[in-house]
Amino acid sequence: MKLAVLGLGNMGSALAHCLLKSGHDVSVWNRTPEKAEVFAEVGATICSSPNDAIAASDFVIICIKSHTETVELVNGLSFSLEGKTICDMSTGDTSDADRLVAILEKQGAGYMLGMINAYPSGIGGDETTILTVGSAGTWDRYGSVIGNLGGKSAHVGEKPAALAALFAGLFTVRQGFMFGMIYGALVCQKAGIPMQVYADQLPATIKLVKDYHDLFARTVPTEDYDNAEASLKVYAMAQEDALKTYLSLNAPADFIRLMHDRTKTAWDDGHGDRQLTSLVQHMTDA
Amino acid sequence: MKLAVLGLGNMGSALAHCLLKSGHDVSVWNRTPEKAEVFAEVGATICSSPNDAIAASDFVIICIKSHTETVELVNGLSFSLEGKTICDMSTGDTSDADRLVAILEKQGAGYMLGMINAYPSGIGGDETTILTVGSAGTWDRYGSVIGNLGGKSAHVGEKPAALAALFAGLFTVRQGFMFGMIYGALVCQKAGIPMQVYADQLPATIKLVKDYHDLFARTVPTEDYDNAEASLKVYAMAQEDALKTYLSLNAPADFIRLMHDRTKTAWDDGHGDRQLTSLVQHMTDA
Repeated sequence: MKLAVLGLGNMGSALAHCLLKSGHDVSVWNRTPEKAEVFAEVGATICSSPNDAIAASDFVIICIKSHTETVELVNGLSFSLEGKTICDMSTGDTSDADRLVAILEKQGAGYMLGMINAYPSGIGGDETTILTVGSAGTWDRYGSVIGNLGGKSAHVGEKPAALAALFAGLFTVRQGFMFGMIYGALVCQKAGIPMQVYADQLPATIKLVKDYHDLFARTVPTEDYDNAEASLKVYAMAQEDALKTYLSLNAPADFIRLMHDRTKTAWDDGHGDRQLTSLVQHMTDA
Repeated sequence: MKLAVLGLGNMGSALAHCLLKSGHDVSVWNRTPEKAEVFAEVGATICSSPNDAIAASDFVIICIKSHTETVELVNGLSFSLEGKTICDMSTGDTSDADRLVAILEKQGAGYMLGMINAYPSGIGGDETTILTVGSAGTWDRYGSVIGNLGGKSAHVGEKPAALAALFAGLFTVRQGFMFGMIYGALVCQKAGIPMQVYADQLPATIKLVKDYHDLFARTVPTEDYDNAEASLKVYAMAQEDALKTYLSLNAPADFIRLMHDRTKTAWDDGHGDRQLTSLVQHMTDA
């Protein structure tokens, strides 16, 4: 199969180098031609326009500034994209992505949108992740190309909203941890605990966070929420103790209260003996 | 100095063994005497009552069921605790702890309350943490004993509320991570992402969580919140994108909205270019 990479910034260059190393036939194009020249030495076909690069290829990876610029690029082509597959790795919100997909579908092109969760130096790594959404069959045909770029890459659905949801879902985990530290710092400050003491105790908590992830990964995909070692009830009581501490020290209690309310509702609904992760099921049904 | 360990369950036994190994002179007592017998072989003095064990010691570690039982034990002694230091490692809420401390102070005893963040097998480890509160001077005198039991142990203040606050502060971090996974799972489900795909992507997020901790540890103890690589404004915008995704997919948005509201308020108050962790300062001043 013939591939193209359009856009040779730091990330686009890393993608093109990786595909060439993997033995693919790669055409490249960049708006400023100087960045493309180096690729002649490593066996790429240098193209002087997006038209030429796309015309020569089956699967076209676009790594420019935004979905909006990709739309402009596609609208400026001198031919239809019938039979081509366009993989856009640029950024934008869900509505930009929807607009791009609509234009590609209208032209009869296959589409894939990718989110690269790595620095350029990570491209090609076994643990590197590129998350993609795409039309039916596109992942079957070109998933192995994406797999060359990141060994832990995955197809997460057909619609741009799926990519946005996965971003939001993963971001919420990191932010939940960060806000846990922020609120935790505030309650400790109120009790006169030096912030250095609090910061020094956090690494042990990161270890426990891994246990939480193991519990999540063991129970949520299988929906096996019974036989809890530490039940939802136990967590609800610990949350209540923590909530009381926040309140008695006059620290902001909204974060722990929100979590406690969700857990207590599930307990009241009869799920007290199940895993804490059963909230995924309880909140879905609610 | 002469030490005693009262209560030889799994944890109390681990504490007593560790102190004996560290070369201390240790008296032990247990309600059912059989559990104490094994300690004769390793050089401990076996006592047949709490009276005897406490009378023979300067620093008395109590590891029984709860603060309430410790109060009963102390009230049942046949002599005053004047000049003794009692270190209670049992559990209870802040009011139980306050009651115990009041009784000990009234008798002229020094006090220390400890929270052991480890399994019995971890006692004596360099990375093991026992967090303590205690009266002035107690940590100076007996902190090294606690250091034998856990190399990362720390004194976090004088009042039981400080121990409760540190527990609440660390628990909030773990729960923030867990609820991040739960809410993240819900938004992904709404977008049709299989839970196994979501679970598989989480380990990469745990790596980023470590970066968040490094940022916290670098900025919060020093209150150095300027020169942000990724500013609070950038996080506020990403939170807003995520919030929109939750809302558009009809997933529960209260968790991400709470975090976004806090960040947006700090931005509106002119802190947009600072570190996200500057919320600790902003929310303290608010």
